[in-house]
Amino acid sequence: MREVYLDNSATTMVCEQAAHKVMEMMTSNYGNPSSLHSKGFEAQKEMEKARNNIARLLGCEHEEIFFTSGGTESNNTAVFGAAEALKRRGNRIVTTAFEHSSVIEAMQQLEKRGFEVVYLKAGKSGIIDLEELKEAVNSKTILVSIMAVNNETGAMQPIDKLRRIIDKAGSPALLHTDAVQAFGKIPLKPKKYGIDLLSASSHKIHGPKGAGALYIRKGARILPLHFGGEQEKKLRPGTEPLPAICGMGEAVEQLPDMAEEMKYIRELNLRLRNSLADIENVHINSDSEGLPYILNFSVRGIRSETMLHYLAQKGIYVSSGSACAKGKKSHVLSAMGLSPALIDSAVRVSFSRYNTPEDIDILTKEIINANNTLARSE
Amino acid sequence: MREVYLDNSATTMVCEQAAHKVMEMMTSNYGNPSSLHSKGFEAQKEMEKARNNIARLLGCEHEEIFFTSGGTESNNTAVFGAAEALKRRGNRIVTTAFEHSSVIEAMQQLEKRGFEVVYLKAGKSGIIDLEELKEAVNSKTILVSIMAVNNETGAMQPIDKLRRIIDKAGSPALLHTDAVQAFGKIPLKPKKYGIDLLSASSHKIHGPKGAGALYIRKGARILPLHFGGEQEKKLRPGTEPLPAICGMGEAVEQLPDMAEEMKYIRELNLRLRNSLADIENVHINSDSEGLPYILNFSVRGIRSETMLHYLAQKGIYVSSGSACAKGKKSHVLSAMGLSPALIDSAVRVSFSRYNTPEDIDILTKEIINANNTLARSE
Repeated sequence: MREVYLDNSATTMVCEQAAHKVMEMMTSNYGNPSSLHSKGFEAQKEMEKARNNIARLLGCEHEEIFFTSGGTESNNTAVFGAAEALKRRGNRIVTTAFEHSSVIEAMQQLEKRGFEVVYLKAGKSGIIDLEELKEAVNSKTILVSIMAVNNETGAMQPIDKLRRIIDKAGSPALLHTDAVQAFGKIPLKPKKYGIDLLSASSHKIHGPKGAGALYIRKGARILPLHFGGEQEKKLRPGTEPLPAICGMGEAVEQLPDMAEEMKYIRELNLRLRNSLADIENVHINSDSEGLPYILNFSVRGIRSETMLHYLAQKGIYVSSGSACAKGKKSHVLSAMGLSPALIDSAVRVSFSRYNTPEDIDILTKEIINANNTLARSE
Repeated sequence: MREVYLDNSATTMVCEQAAHKVMEMMTSNYGNPSSLHSKGFEAQKEMEKARNNIARLLGCEHEEIFFTSGGTESNNTAVFGAAEALKRRGNRIVTTAFEHSSVIEAMQQLEKRGFEVVYLKAGKSGIIDLEELKEAVNSKTILVSIMAVNNETGAMQPIDKLRRIIDKAGSPALLHTDAVQAFGKIPLKPKKYGIDLLSASSHKIHGPKGAGALYIRKGARILPLHFGGEQEKKLRPGTEPLPAICGMGEAVEQLPDMAEEMKYIRELNLRLRNSLADIENVHINSDSEGLPYILNFSVRGIRSETMLHYLAQKGIYVSSGSACAKGKKSHVLSAMGLSPALIDSAVRVSFSRYNTPEDIDILTKEIINANNTLARSE
């Protein structure tokens, strides 16, 4: 059976070149970058190559890139690290109600520690209201954390507008963006937008699971989550996950031209949107202005799990929302004000450059079949 | 040039089977274990296989094994997690002065948070004095963290004697052992010794960097360091570093019979000890009762870095101490009361099953050469 993998926002297949690099770092170049001999130096050289690749993509200095074990650790480090470093300047934090759980749950911890957290709402299209942000940020606000692209809907936030609002409010806040779904897909230069902290992950861009990066603007100081060795300037001690890091670096190296890939993905997205428009009971949840890599829709009356299971039997892999939520009701779609019926039947399709128009046609055909044959929940 | 890699306590070459497993988890079985479709289930199945392998090695239940990104994270999670979970029962913690930096520095953080930490000294042989431990543990002691095998000298602690001392003192302490250097080398069954928390790492046993495990006894509750998704029962959220985890599981699967490997490693160790005994200016720092995988010695008057550099030029890779310390003066040898001259000239050789007697002979020859030709520091 032909596999149609359309769950690329959950994780991706590692591209050939990245897998090859991982292999090299395990079997020949297996030294510990902290070792003071050539076997260590060789490993470190590869790590710095990966760091340079990421820095180039983000248009920043290589010493502004810190490796972590993944997106969750990058987000946790940014949120906790910034809050703890700046708590003497204020205790107010502004974020959104539709962040990834690794931001939302870190915020809930901070509330327990006495921080005041404001959660901005999502409009119908899943985008924050800048007026609401202006009201929320004040001179005691020490952190603003707003994701670049939502992982369930693809909604893009006005990241370019945030810095001005923070500065105008006379706030000392560090600006963090969870760019896990944006990294490698849209040109996101932290310096251009006044972003202080930016989280990225390897396994969403055809790199291996187990590595992430955190951009920390030179001069911005945050406290570490982990304590131990001297690695990553003590911001993230512990032997580096070198195979995954170098795989991530290679995956970045292999990224196609962003504009060209975007054009291709937009075609896939439109092909699916157009097909879905013809199917009864289908409601599209993703804003048409969102990142085309993600298309969220609901097939009224068919529960997400039922649809997922049906499609998986046909070798088609999609998701009901964030993989990390594993079956929990989507807080993102809730924040957008969707009806429970639409939330319970939501399906997220997420594309990669390895998908083809034929994949879309196979998916469409099976959604039509499902729509006609599956028992409806009401 | 033939490479002689004798820095296996810093990191190891990934064995063929583990590397193969990593490859599989990147290119064919690349699903996200949290995904609710067969591609996710397949990945999860492999992860549980790895968990079972580790549980079998430790003689525990599979649900007592939690995956982390490595030894440092396992140690940090155990130390912070236990201290924060038990802080209402007392604020005293007992550890040693020669733990790995990921324990020592976590302890220093806890001191800043108001915990009282007692650091047990090392005797001449690098082993704690049980009488000193008895005096240190009281009814307000909530955590005892003592490593199984020291990473710089191989000194083995009396792990089997700790639980009784804790219980006799009427202490509610959780017992943690950093078993990163012991895991897979000596039979260490946490249940047998009343250990509540045990840290292990993949890349010290021919698995890939980027995965570790933390044994948490069923019933022992610790708080997480990271917050986000539902992974690892919320103790360690974030997409699991699956290639590394499954590589670790495979590396465990490939471990030879421990007693047989120990016999082989002991022969290598003795071969080196005997050769070194004939060389002028050499002082052996490792106790003869220690784990034979590690042999620490000093060549008086030749600084560690000079020796390392000399040997590396000959394709021989050893270390000056812990890789994580990267050139800092060894706190382990200091805790043993060694003279500054011996500390400054310390060399750590660490063996693996891939080393041969010929490796030892090549090393010996070059140490003799170095001893005869290198400029001495005083």
